[in-house]
Amino acid sequence: MPAATIGPELQRLIDLLAKMPGLGPRSAKRAALYLLKKRDPVMRPLAFALDDAANKVKACSVCGNWDSIDPCAVCADVDRDSSILCVVQDVGDLWALERAGAHKGRYHVLGALLSPLDGIGPDDLNLGSLIARAKDGLISEIILALPATVDGQTTAHYLTEHLETSGLAVTRLSQGVPVGGELDYLDEGTLAAAMKSRRPF
Amino acid sequence: MPAATIGPELQRLIDLLAKMPGLGPRSAKRAALYLLKKRDPVMRPLAFALDDAANKVKACSVCGNWDSIDPCAVCADVDRDSSILCVVQDVGDLWALERAGAHKGRYHVLGALLSPLDGIGPDDLNLGSLIARAKDGLISEIILALPATVDGQTTAHYLTEHLETSGLAVTRLSQGVPVGGELDYLDEGTLAAAMKSRRPF
Repeated sequence: MPAATIGPELQRLIDLLAKMPGLGPRSAKRAALYLLKKRDPVMRPLAFALDDAANKVKACSVCGNWDSIDPCAVCADVDRDSSILCVVQDVGDLWALERAGAHKGRYHVLGALLSPLDGIGPDDLNLGSLIARAKDGLISEIILALPATVDGQTTAHYLTEHLETSGLAVTRLSQGVPVGGELDYLDEGTLAAAMKSRRPF
Repeated sequence: MPAATIGPELQRLIDLLAKMPGLGPRSAKRAALYLLKKRDPVMRPLAFALDDAANKVKACSVCGNWDSIDPCAVCADVDRDSSILCVVQDVGDLWALERAGAHKGRYHVLGALLSPLDGIGPDDLNLGSLIARAKDGLISEIILALPATVDGQTTAHYLTEHLETSGLAVTRLSQGVPVGGELDYLDEGTLAAAMKSRRPF
């Protein structure tokens, strides 16, 4: 398409929208047209919300979760069990566990996983405050809710080594057949893991 | 998830992102996390681009295309054939035809289709200026590039009635087998239309 068909302001908007996960160049155009039709109900409020969140949302100094207050709402919640700490890679994982209602304790967000191939070492993770929290005497169990990938398991091993010195129970999520999962569709690794960690019925 | 887990600024951003076509509640969360990680390269520029486009992009007073200049870049382009006018429903359809390089003339964007069931009548379409353009003596052919839906065909019939009085050639896009299309996967209506309008080889 000749550059002239779409004006520079609109093209810049489309280019930026296309960078978002879930939107490609074509769906970014559709999104831009939708937004231009909904300028007052969606487009201007979205511009404001982006700017506002970019300025106000910060990483919690205790756990690394993103919130506009510090400590974050999860750390500030007095009804949570302070003796169990769940370590996650990312804020999205924290949200996933909260959506499942699977954890009523505290969290710690690493922000990344150890990845020697990508040059991501211990200094790139939110680790210092985790080790300090582990030693504060309040925590009795640390759950490593990290992805079942190579980097996730590397990070889990590293954390286990550095946290076991503090005498805490370090646990990890179980591996096995997903709820509602058909055996036929599962990969061999998961099936082998589920067989290995079979439990009495 | 308890309301407290995600702060109000972040929740408002997620809610607004989830309104965009192509993003649902879950992908809006992923997009928000992505944007918070890319505040300076993407998030703040996107906020500015949204606001800037909302203020500067207007419908062209000649053809109804969206641009920051008026007349729009397509109307202002002197290399285009002013004798052929292509009528489309939406700006996205204009972009699609430009992407295909299928039309070197002018455009007219209706903005909507006649839809008696939804209460959309002739006054809701960008029709007045189309009829004025049709009478200006420059145009010899009007191509109705409208969707092959009930509303699209209703609108095409309405336009044909109102434009034929001006003695112009009114044409429409051909219907048939899409390029690269397998007959086996085509619906009966398209196959029947393609058979009916068969052409010498």
